[in-house]
Amino acid sequence: MTDRSKPASSPAPLSGTGHARRDLLKFGGAATLGAVLGGAAWLGHATPAQAATGGGAELAPGDPLDILIVNYDGGTLLDFAGPSEIFHRLPNTNVRYASLDGGNVTLEFGVVYGKTERLADIERTGLLLVPGGSDLSAPMRPAYQAQIRRLADSAKYVTSVCNGSLVLAATGVLNGKRSACHWAFVNKLAEYGAIPVPDRFVEDDHGRFMSGGGVTAGIDFALRVAARLRGRQAAEFTQLAIEYDPAPPFHSGHPRDARPDVIAMVDKELPGASKGLARIPGVR
Amino acid sequence: MTDRSKPASSPAPLSGTGHARRDLLKFGGAATLGAVLGGAAWLGHATPAQAATGGGAELAPGDPLDILIVNYDGGTLLDFAGPSEIFHRLPNTNVRYASLDGGNVTLEFGVVYGKTERLADIERTGLLLVPGGSDLSAPMRPAYQAQIRRLADSAKYVTSVCNGSLVLAATGVLNGKRSACHWAFVNKLAEYGAIPVPDRFVEDDHGRFMSGGGVTAGIDFALRVAARLRGRQAAEFTQLAIEYDPAPPFHSGHPRDARPDVIAMVDKELPGASKGLARIPGVR
Repeated sequence: MTDRSKPASSPAPLSGTGHARRDLLKFGGAATLGAVLGGAAWLGHATPAQAATGGGAELAPGDPLDILIVNYDGGTLLDFAGPSEIFHRLPNTNVRYASLDGGNVTLEFGVVYGKTERLADIERTGLLLVPGGSDLSAPMRPAYQAQIRRLADSAKYVTSVCNGSLVLAATGVLNGKRSACHWAFVNKLAEYGAIPVPDRFVEDDHGRFMSGGGVTAGIDFALRVAARLRGRQAAEFTQLAIEYDPAPPFHSGHPRDARPDVIAMVDKELPGASKGLARIPGVR
Repeated sequence: MTDRSKPASSPAPLSGTGHARRDLLKFGGAATLGAVLGGAAWLGHATPAQAATGGGAELAPGDPLDILIVNYDGGTLLDFAGPSEIFHRLPNTNVRYASLDGGNVTLEFGVVYGKTERLADIERTGLLLVPGGSDLSAPMRPAYQAQIRRLADSAKYVTSVCNGSLVLAATGVLNGKRSACHWAFVNKLAEYGAIPVPDRFVEDDHGRFMSGGGVTAGIDFALRVAARLRGRQAAEFTQLAIEYDPAPPFHSGHPRDARPDVIAMVDKELPGASKGLARIPGVR
């Protein structure tokens, strides 16, 4: 297993004011931005600003951002399709996809997502995103867990959408950390040492850990991540580009709003859901 | 080219009351539902009720529903990832993916979507969905257009998300029909004989034609389609399952709300966007 004794870093929030390190990195970031606009590409290596401040340093809006989305058989397409659509549109941001063996992964409903890299081939990433799924057997396997933990330990931001937080929590990296999860599974987080928070977006350690609720919460999650790491204007640009002006025809997106018969339908398919303790393959 | 002289059918709305044909099909649908729950599968062939009423007949909530999503190089993942996540969860519904050549398609940003069927191998479908993209060169080619038109002519429901409506309109099937589109492209519809409607969900011919606005509008679109074709309870179930309880951090999802500097950013990337006339490869 990977080394779990490494202390979690506690970077300063980008949105804070009067914080010396953030101001320092802002100036450093501006210089880096100039280099990138001049044609340099970041391939996952530390920039001078990052090397100077250590692995837990905050990114300034101009610093290159490398995002890695973890894919696996049984994952849910929309958990990462929302975030990826936003992240790909951000300036100075590189989005990659990887699975344990690389190549195609077969998602929920038999959807095939192709051309993923091998996790072992990726030295490190700036932001790690673990999406959820309907079957977590694959990413709960020791080999997957070790790769996820290795990448999480060196990532500046460790994030998840939906019950991807259970996968992260199982590696131990969320011990004592607040995290979101799909409403049907959120209380399972406690079984892995994380603190369940039934919100649509949750952060801890001043944003080193960020997580979204179930499936579509990934869109709101990603807009918040985008604003933090690339600036509010960039986030608003992506929101406009993907016309995210939601108008659900029903009030049925959360158990607090849904009709009892509809909640009962989910409970029937996923026993324990309305207690936040739905069972799912791969999770004890 | 395919036969464009076939008149569009005008089925009755499922939500209407006191309509004789709908009532007839409702009873027929109940019988069909029993057969399907008993183990029968619909593989794209007409049910007895459909055969009796012709290709334009409405589906009752219990009738099997076959959905075909058209994929192509340059398409946008989230345009169909939202709808597919909803459609796959509906009762008695089969979702397929197809492209001109079958196999992998390379979407926007190099995302690879795999294992699509060949359009030519699909005899017919109940609901045809054409998602949008950042490059419409592929689906505007005559061979793609002919397959899309062929399937649209025999489909009960002809639908699109985002600027997929431009692809549909180019086949001629939307002549004189009201349609939605991504806000940046919506007025291009008129160049192909369709009627641009700047709404998030648009229907015409009593729901034979249904369309969503840009990218994320596909989620709202799909919930409305789900309610119409599988019933409101099923739609609300899927909304709860995907935790669609949106909470955008900004008001920037539509030009009516976005800040002028953000709209200017889109106009810079897509000249003409704020007039609904953005240029895109493949579109004249």
